[in-house]
Amino acid sequence: MRYSTLLAAAGLVCFTFTNHAIAQTDNSDWSITNRSLAPPVHASSELAQVIANSPQPDPDVGGRYPDSDEAWLALQERAHSGPNPLPALAEQLNLLIESREVAVNGNTQITVYDVTPRQVAPEHRDHVFLHLHGGGYVLGGGPGAASEAAQISAAAGIYTVSVDYRMPPASPFPAAIDDTIAVYRQLLEDFEPGQIAIGGTSAGAGLSFAAVLQMKNLGLPVPGAIFAGTPWADLTDSSDSLHTNAGIDRILITYEGLLLVGATQYADGEELTNPLLSPLYGDFGGFPPTILISGTRDMLLSDTARAHRKLLAAGVEADLHVFEGMSHAEYMIMPDLPEGQMTFAEISRFIKAHLD
Amino acid sequence: MRYSTLLAAAGLVCFTFTNHAIAQTDNSDWSITNRSLAPPVHASSELAQVIANSPQPDPDVGGRYPDSDEAWLALQERAHSGPNPLPALAEQLNLLIESREVAVNGNTQITVYDVTPRQVAPEHRDHVFLHLHGGGYVLGGGPGAASEAAQISAAAGIYTVSVDYRMPPASPFPAAIDDTIAVYRQLLEDFEPGQIAIGGTSAGAGLSFAAVLQMKNLGLPVPGAIFAGTPWADLTDSSDSLHTNAGIDRILITYEGLLLVGATQYADGEELTNPLLSPLYGDFGGFPPTILISGTRDMLLSDTARAHRKLLAAGVEADLHVFEGMSHAEYMIMPDLPEGQMTFAEISRFIKAHLD
Repeated sequence: MRYSTLLAAAGLVCFTFTNHAIAQTDNSDWSITNRSLAPPVHASSELAQVIANSPQPDPDVGGRYPDSDEAWLALQERAHSGPNPLPALAEQLNLLIESREVAVNGNTQITVYDVTPRQVAPEHRDHVFLHLHGGGYVLGGGPGAASEAAQISAAAGIYTVSVDYRMPPASPFPAAIDDTIAVYRQLLEDFEPGQIAIGGTSAGAGLSFAAVLQMKNLGLPVPGAIFAGTPWADLTDSSDSLHTNAGIDRILITYEGLLLVGATQYADGEELTNPLLSPLYGDFGGFPPTILISGTRDMLLSDTARAHRKLLAAGVEADLHVFEGMSHAEYMIMPDLPEGQMTFAEISRFIKAHLD
Repeated sequence: MRYSTLLAAAGLVCFTFTNHAIAQTDNSDWSITNRSLAPPVHASSELAQVIANSPQPDPDVGGRYPDSDEAWLALQERAHSGPNPLPALAEQLNLLIESREVAVNGNTQITVYDVTPRQVAPEHRDHVFLHLHGGGYVLGGGPGAASEAAQISAAAGIYTVSVDYRMPPASPFPAAIDDTIAVYRQLLEDFEPGQIAIGGTSAGAGLSFAAVLQMKNLGLPVPGAIFAGTPWADLTDSSDSLHTNAGIDRILITYEGLLLVGATQYADGEELTNPLLSPLYGDFGGFPPTILISGTRDMLLSDTARAHRKLLAAGVEADLHVFEGMSHAEYMIMPDLPEGQMTFAEISRFIKAHLD
């Protein structure tokens, strides 16, 4: 006898389990009807205001992406050669930001950004944060790659290395992982693994999980902590919030946009359920403590919650944070909002508690 | 320069911030269009199957509730005098379950259920769990009140006292709080506050928060831990997931059903923002460590996430768990499902870690 049975006994069975008359497709899909949605009044007033001033998300974004490799390369070139945000961020956040080249594979070099607080926190004197940017594996590179790294570095007072990893169409999977591992190997020359945190947002968080899986494959020691900000941890179109929050998440809006384009370009024919592409199909045993961030409107809420449960099931310490009314990665897109400040404060607290 | 700005620089501003042509109402509400929703493939296979076999939630449930006090009393009488689930649960879970009367206020007596594991866990020999049932403050009483208590008692191996608190229309707010405090005072005669956990699901979780607020008002010591299962912690219709998950959460379906009826009946004219009705408007300072449970389809996901953040902001240790594809309280309604078993295991782990 359960709660539902009690309701049934009360003649309330209609309350949850009736109306068989509603049309259903053969495969038990539901047809969720339209609804009016006001801005989230219990988000921060700043985020609520941003949303109130935002046009309704338009799901018809898929066709706006380039349809050829040449067009993608041109788009990336334009995106990554825009105004460099780093000098202003360095001044605002009291950081030193420098770029350097790292050899990752024979003749291949990539750019990394060294972000150093003018005042390193005493507990982080011997620590480093390895940062991986987001952008669906196809965007977010160039100097902008280090923008989130600057926020993390400033909030925690930690030296941060942000990797401008190679991306498709020039360099699809597994180039991004190879680059991350190459930079990690270099860090291991100067740091103990427990002194290194790794993480990022969206694809950067999924790539962090994938890199830790690859470290295990290679017999490398894993780092001391992971920051997984709304991780894209399953590139297939199967997480539930991809559908429940479609059209509500004003950043991603639909799987048939950046996610589908990014998954297709990055995987380059590889099965999307390969754990190095979609870490939720891998083994999280031996992973380090992980902090996870999402929002109630986030299309990757399910990826985040699934990763949290998978870590806990593997015996890993894992902290989940979900912000009211927040779409995908808005804490990173608008770091000055309370949701951004709270996120970076939580990351700081977490890595201080877990790095050696 | 932010990620969004980079996208704009890349000519992708259309991706997130365009289509002003879509009609918007004057108050910046969005009109979210209909969508097809498949069962959540990454919920447990058992839960996914239950959902696949469930009819589409019908939002037109409001009119099915009684419209007079007399009809409510008759419904409650029928619901609470149905088959008693406790003997079978006691046998299945190896528990001893007994009821007794407690004087709460002059001549007023209520029933409580003492649930004792045949084998109490060694670490819980001196502990008790004070359980408060759900049901929107209008249903869920009678012997069924102790069903969730039996699950908690068995999973953790802890003695549990479940309160069949008074409900409207006979006894609206603050009777439920008064009853809880009366039972808590009685427990304090035999237990240190740090040896007592308190909690429940839905209204039971909101009532747990309210009772702890009232303990602070009364100068009583607070218990050692709280279990807040998908807490109804804001009785107003303002949490975002009430709207984003409307029609998707197959248990609550709509605010205009049990929630509106329960809030109206229970508050009985009191302002819904009274913190003893809606604890999210109160002060969580000094609250004990709290574990919170929700699901991605839960209409009270926002209440849960807001309570989590409010606890953290008050310096309280708080653990948030969100299950993929789970509607409101399904772990409690179907405790044998993996989501139920995981929830009760998490509660057990949490109270073992936090009771003195």
